[in-house]
Amino acid sequence: MTEPKNAAELLGTPGFDQHHLPYASGEVAGVPQLLARLGEHALPLRRLAGELECPADLQAAFRSPDLTGLLHGDRRLWDRARALLRSWVTDPRHAATVCRGALPIPTLVLGLPFQPGDYVDFYASAHHASNVGKLFRPGQPELPANWKQLPIGYHGRSGTIRPSGHPVRRPNGLRKLDAATAEFGPSGFLDIEAEIGFVLGSASIEPIPLDEAEAHVFGVVLVNDWSARDIQAFEYVPLGPFLGKSFATSIAAWVTPLAALDAARVPSPVRELPLAGYLDDSGSIERGLDLELEVLLNGELISSPPARELYYSYAQMLAHMTVNGASTRPGDFFASGTVSGPAREQRGSMLELSWLGAEPIRLSDGSIRSALLDGDEVVIRARAAGPDGSTIRLPEVSGRITA
Amino acid sequence: MTEPKNAAELLGTPGFDQHHLPYASGEVAGVPQLLARLGEHALPLRRLAGELECPADLQAAFRSPDLTGLLHGDRRLWDRARALLRSWVTDPRHAATVCRGALPIPTLVLGLPFQPGDYVDFYASAHHASNVGKLFRPGQPELPANWKQLPIGYHGRSGTIRPSGHPVRRPNGLRKLDAATAEFGPSGFLDIEAEIGFVLGSASIEPIPLDEAEAHVFGVVLVNDWSARDIQAFEYVPLGPFLGKSFATSIAAWVTPLAALDAARVPSPVRELPLAGYLDDSGSIERGLDLELEVLLNGELISSPPARELYYSYAQMLAHMTVNGASTRPGDFFASGTVSGPAREQRGSMLELSWLGAEPIRLSDGSIRSALLDGDEVVIRARAAGPDGSTIRLPEVSGRITA
Repeated sequence: MTEPKNAAELLGTPGFDQHHLPYASGEVAGVPQLLARLGEHALPLRRLAGELECPADLQAAFRSPDLTGLLHGDRRLWDRARALLRSWVTDPRHAATVCRGALPIPTLVLGLPFQPGDYVDFYASAHHASNVGKLFRPGQPELPANWKQLPIGYHGRSGTIRPSGHPVRRPNGLRKLDAATAEFGPSGFLDIEAEIGFVLGSASIEPIPLDEAEAHVFGVVLVNDWSARDIQAFEYVPLGPFLGKSFATSIAAWVTPLAALDAARVPSPVRELPLAGYLDDSGSIERGLDLELEVLLNGELISSPPARELYYSYAQMLAHMTVNGASTRPGDFFASGTVSGPAREQRGSMLELSWLGAEPIRLSDGSIRSALLDGDEVVIRARAAGPDGSTIRLPEVSGRITA
Repeated sequence: MTEPKNAAELLGTPGFDQHHLPYASGEVAGVPQLLARLGEHALPLRRLAGELECPADLQAAFRSPDLTGLLHGDRRLWDRARALLRSWVTDPRHAATVCRGALPIPTLVLGLPFQPGDYVDFYASAHHASNVGKLFRPGQPELPANWKQLPIGYHGRSGTIRPSGHPVRRPNGLRKLDAATAEFGPSGFLDIEAEIGFVLGSASIEPIPLDEAEAHVFGVVLVNDWSARDIQAFEYVPLGPFLGKSFATSIAAWVTPLAALDAARVPSPVRELPLAGYLDDSGSIERGLDLELEVLLNGELISSPPARELYYSYAQMLAHMTVNGASTRPGDFFASGTVSGPAREQRGSMLELSWLGAEPIRLSDGSIRSALLDGDEVVIRARAAGPDGSTIRLPEVSGRITA
């Protein structure tokens, strides 16, 4: 791939036109820089901010090595950055400048798009939580009693959040043999969790009500929250997941601004129990997001989880996370938990897809999987409706298992 | 308090002599600086490093606004820093310089001594875990089946770690009414957890075996990990504590170097079940720490938890936390969980001290407590044997509850 000949070439890629404009961080001439994406090219914003007209506060944000500068700003700054970028890439007078700086994405090494602060992992899909209940607690209610009254969540390890493409080493740990005994060794039940993640900016020290969510949620990024089920099974009572999750969480290199997903908003599922006031979103704007995820194992589609099925919205997760007075910092991050739909082919984990091994996943080479093998590669990608009839493609998060 | 007249005055305070030398961060002339403590005075290291002989790498570390510079170094750097500080404060030739820069601690506002990365809270006291089992799961085994096979832990919220003295606002949340229902409002069961915390330096990307713990554990700091029991009770199945803990964790302003606690080392309790190889500390050096904690409520001593009773050592907690391949960063932090001893007056939480309200704590003003009231102030402090017959006093972590 070479430098684009003209702006039309850059704008011509469905999913990555002027309606999307996601951000990443990548090294250009050895220096990590904030990038915006147009088609299959990355625009180095530090350089464009120097060559095109750019207000001082946006210049400062665009000179940040990643999203940190923008995340320290507020929604107004984010919207102005987006409007400016769009004007740059659509104004024919700037086409030559934009094209001259554009870098073919395959030539870049992309790092984490932001510096993660605290990381919270939710459990917001009723289909996923019900499947887990059926598998592990047969004969009992599918969902815990609290599930439809609050979005269950827990803190994960932010220091092991890795950018897409980073290899994932199979973790060791105490693997459950039966209720009381375990054996140390490499996980024999390594799994995926297809999730959507939300990047926070604009620090807060007060609870964030539902209707202020958009002032803090900067954007959306795909997540694979790898899970060692046999390690988690032994450790998680009573304080929750720990080593079974903390070895790695992969995120896509590109963060899609929340504003790019306005056309993907849909109503959330019907609330089956009344919610406490701070979670009650009846009468609010629609905050379900109709992202169609795809999970590929070694290149084969094994699942298509629908994010619109998530019971709790990003605004509810954020309102819950902060209602106790917990503060947030720019770079804090939370994820939905496994996205699963009602159909078999919509399940977002191999645990569910293989129904705990009873119905293994069959691949075209004749092999079967109930868990990941060394060398397996998982790719999660998604698409959604964009503004003006366009399409938004959420860039993939990929990872390959190593021994 | 005024500037000390001579070095003897600085060295003469039991608990804070040249054998201790803990570190903090405080503003001097409006600039956050790394401080070392001698008696009731703080020595601004940036200034001393400029006035006394100091190798370049230590100068750089001492110019850091907090412990960050040192934590990016390794054990050799930490030991050299400590030896240099000790030589400065004990060499009569430097007495005038040391005294001239010394700042009375009550005049300083101390911040966080380091920038917390990931925060892991363990559950390493068998007495505490057994008490919780007796209170909440009567008739069942006191300890979960996994408890004596691994140090149970979970990730907490690092963004709400606050320095000693920071007020603690009573959190709101869904308080458990019965197994299936909850009500939103301020926590009615706000509690303390007296813990010891461990600050990590020298990044790792590989599991840290027991015998390399000292290469990564920089120092020890007292912790009060505030807990809203009624909120936690409703939320914590199946993914563990979340809002019941994430509103605040207080830590002391001063970090005691691990090396200062060499004389406080004692054997850990007898291992009642064999441990997996990576946790088996038979034959290792002693890594129990004989810290005598004291918990004061509104100035009255209500408990004296003995840290020597912790079943798992800091080395075991760290080996466990990383055995799955999880990396660590300078500033990562972990805490023991509530320290409780076998006796009633050694319990490290009000939940245990009041036996879930059945035996309320009686204060001298005639009032009783099973949980914290608005305005209550809790102070946790500790002491231990120091080198050469000295005493080490671990500076307090305090916090007052506000509405």
